[in-house]
Amino acid sequence: MRIDYDEAAKFLQEHDNYIILTHQNPDGDTIGGGFGLCYALRSIGKKANVLCSDEFSERYEFLTSGCPPMKFKHDTIVSVDVADKALLGSKLAHYGDYVRLCIDHHKSNTGYAEKTLLNPDAAAACEVIYELFVNMNIRLDVTAAECLYTGIATDTGCFKYSCTTGRTHIIAAELMDCGIKFARINRDMFDIKSKGRVELERYIISSMEYFLDDKCSLITITKAVTEETGATSSDFEGISNLTLQLQGTRVGVVIKERDDGKFRVSMRSASDVDVSDICTKFGGGGHKRAAGCLMEGSPEVIKRRLLSAIAPALGMNLWLIDN
Amino acid sequence: MRIDYDEAAKFLQEHDNYIILTHQNPDGDTIGGGFGLCYALRSIGKKANVLCSDEFSERYEFLTSGCPPMKFKHDTIVSVDVADKALLGSKLAHYGDYVRLCIDHHKSNTGYAEKTLLNPDAAAACEVIYELFVNMNIRLDVTAAECLYTGIATDTGCFKYSCTTGRTHIIAAELMDCGIKFARINRDMFDIKSKGRVELERYIISSMEYFLDDKCSLITITKAVTEETGATSSDFEGISNLTLQLQGTRVGVVIKERDDGKFRVSMRSASDVDVSDICTKFGGGGHKRAAGCLMEGSPEVIKRRLLSAIAPALGMNLWLIDN
Repeated sequence: MRIDYDEAAKFLQEHDNYIILTHQNPDGDTIGGGFGLCYALRSIGKKANVLCSDEFSERYEFLTSGCPPMKFKHDTIVSVDVADKALLGSKLAHYGDYVRLCIDHHKSNTGYAEKTLLNPDAAAACEVIYELFVNMNIRLDVTAAECLYTGIATDTGCFKYSCTTGRTHIIAAELMDCGIKFARINRDMFDIKSKGRVELERYIISSMEYFLDDKCSLITITKAVTEETGATSSDFEGISNLTLQLQGTRVGVVIKERDDGKFRVSMRSASDVDVSDICTKFGGGGHKRAAGCLMEGSPEVIKRRLLSAIAPALGMNLWLIDN
Repeated sequence: MRIDYDEAAKFLQEHDNYIILTHQNPDGDTIGGGFGLCYALRSIGKKANVLCSDEFSERYEFLTSGCPPMKFKHDTIVSVDVADKALLGSKLAHYGDYVRLCIDHHKSNTGYAEKTLLNPDAAAACEVIYELFVNMNIRLDVTAAECLYTGIATDTGCFKYSCTTGRTHIIAAELMDCGIKFARINRDMFDIKSKGRVELERYIISSMEYFLDDKCSLITITKAVTEETGATSSDFEGISNLTLQLQGTRVGVVIKERDDGKFRVSMRSASDVDVSDICTKFGGGGHKRAAGCLMEGSPEVIKRRLLSAIAPALGMNLWLIDN
């Protein structure tokens, strides 16, 4: 059942002994939202803990460290930024059917919770939680404000992406009034990279291939490369975006070998080329500007098959793929 | 003479036939501010043109193209984001002593103009201009709003840097209400790179050296490298920041060969190490977190001399520099 801010505020005030569930492969928004909610609930005298199927990365320690687990009998289950119970991951899967309140911003939310506070226009779940706190007259301390800022900044690429709204900026302004160290947060979130990520980018930038008059860029990442760079799964976040950075590139492709030897193809468009049309030809799908498919064979064969489909979408002749 | 918003508004309303001067090596803030002011003045029936010593880069064409030069007898000289008349560059130097009104946000403004509207707390000159337009009751069209947003976004690293304030976010929200294409602007400003820049980053990322237990990173760029990559001077913008991206790096160094064969050293600190102290030892200077000096000799000799000074600042032994 969809509920509004008033009802969600009433729910949180009337209950206690919360466990707050975050999604697997946790990002800034689910961590910031989960811990922001936890700090706020504790500040009004409630008991609350945050759980996740996966470990929180060290880079979020400044948000998680002030909120050590409390001992109490868990009672009320709330989820934050979790669009589907399948995203809770294996360790929290048994909670999936018992979520009392879900706070989210994904249009695709499946409505698995008893009550859902959903604002699909919000750039981040942390934006929804901020509005809820305003409704509840909760005064945010610095750490809770840093939690919400981190979620909003990471989900919007630091206010860069089209999901950002005027309201997003106003909330950022209000969070900054709490005295948050936003510049340090942004440096940690956007500028600092792990050794594995640096090695991965080093490989990508030196092995990126350009085709079709530089309008298409392509990266091939084999299992061997992944092992050599020491990159972990979180190091791969957003690498498809790196394919579109050269001025004039219209379609970017990442071909990444999976453990089973098949290749996961991710395609990005920076133009009117609809990459979901192209991926659909190979049994995949997605959105106009971001799509994918799964392919088998050698990287060279996959590359030629993909370029044969991309060339006409760019209005070009096939022979150019030998460029 | 420093003036306030009311006086600046009165000045602009009482005069006409403006030339608006921007600084040499023009960036998003001087271009956005200059053209934003030009569009707004034309919208209230004034004549105005924007001038610069250097050409505007193609990436700003979406701001400049709607404002072709008008023919009229220039009368009132205004400068935007120009802290010192020396920054007007050679082609506009003759205007330096005749600037009637300077609109700026640099604390270091030398007061060369007859009247100066200066807000050193503003993150960008475009923020000052926005406040001025509010004072003048000027209704911004989309292009003028895009000019101001571009200046604010580029000077703050898209709201990432510490110069950003709550007011910066509120102004961004109000500019977004004008219907600007902010996501496309941010992509063009932050994600798209020229071929020269991509080649330069490719070189940097594959040749970056790490010393002193990975706490110090170092890039050497010879004249030959600059020629090979085809990078222009604007492609070098902000490359020192690339030295600090590896987690744990505390000091980053760029050694760049100049046309005269001497080496320009740029040093950045991501910690409590004061790099201006280090650069002062070699006759240079700067700020705690960003400093530089000029050195002679072979890159290898310069590197060893620098590392010998950086090691103790990191509390390390000299022998570690052979790592």
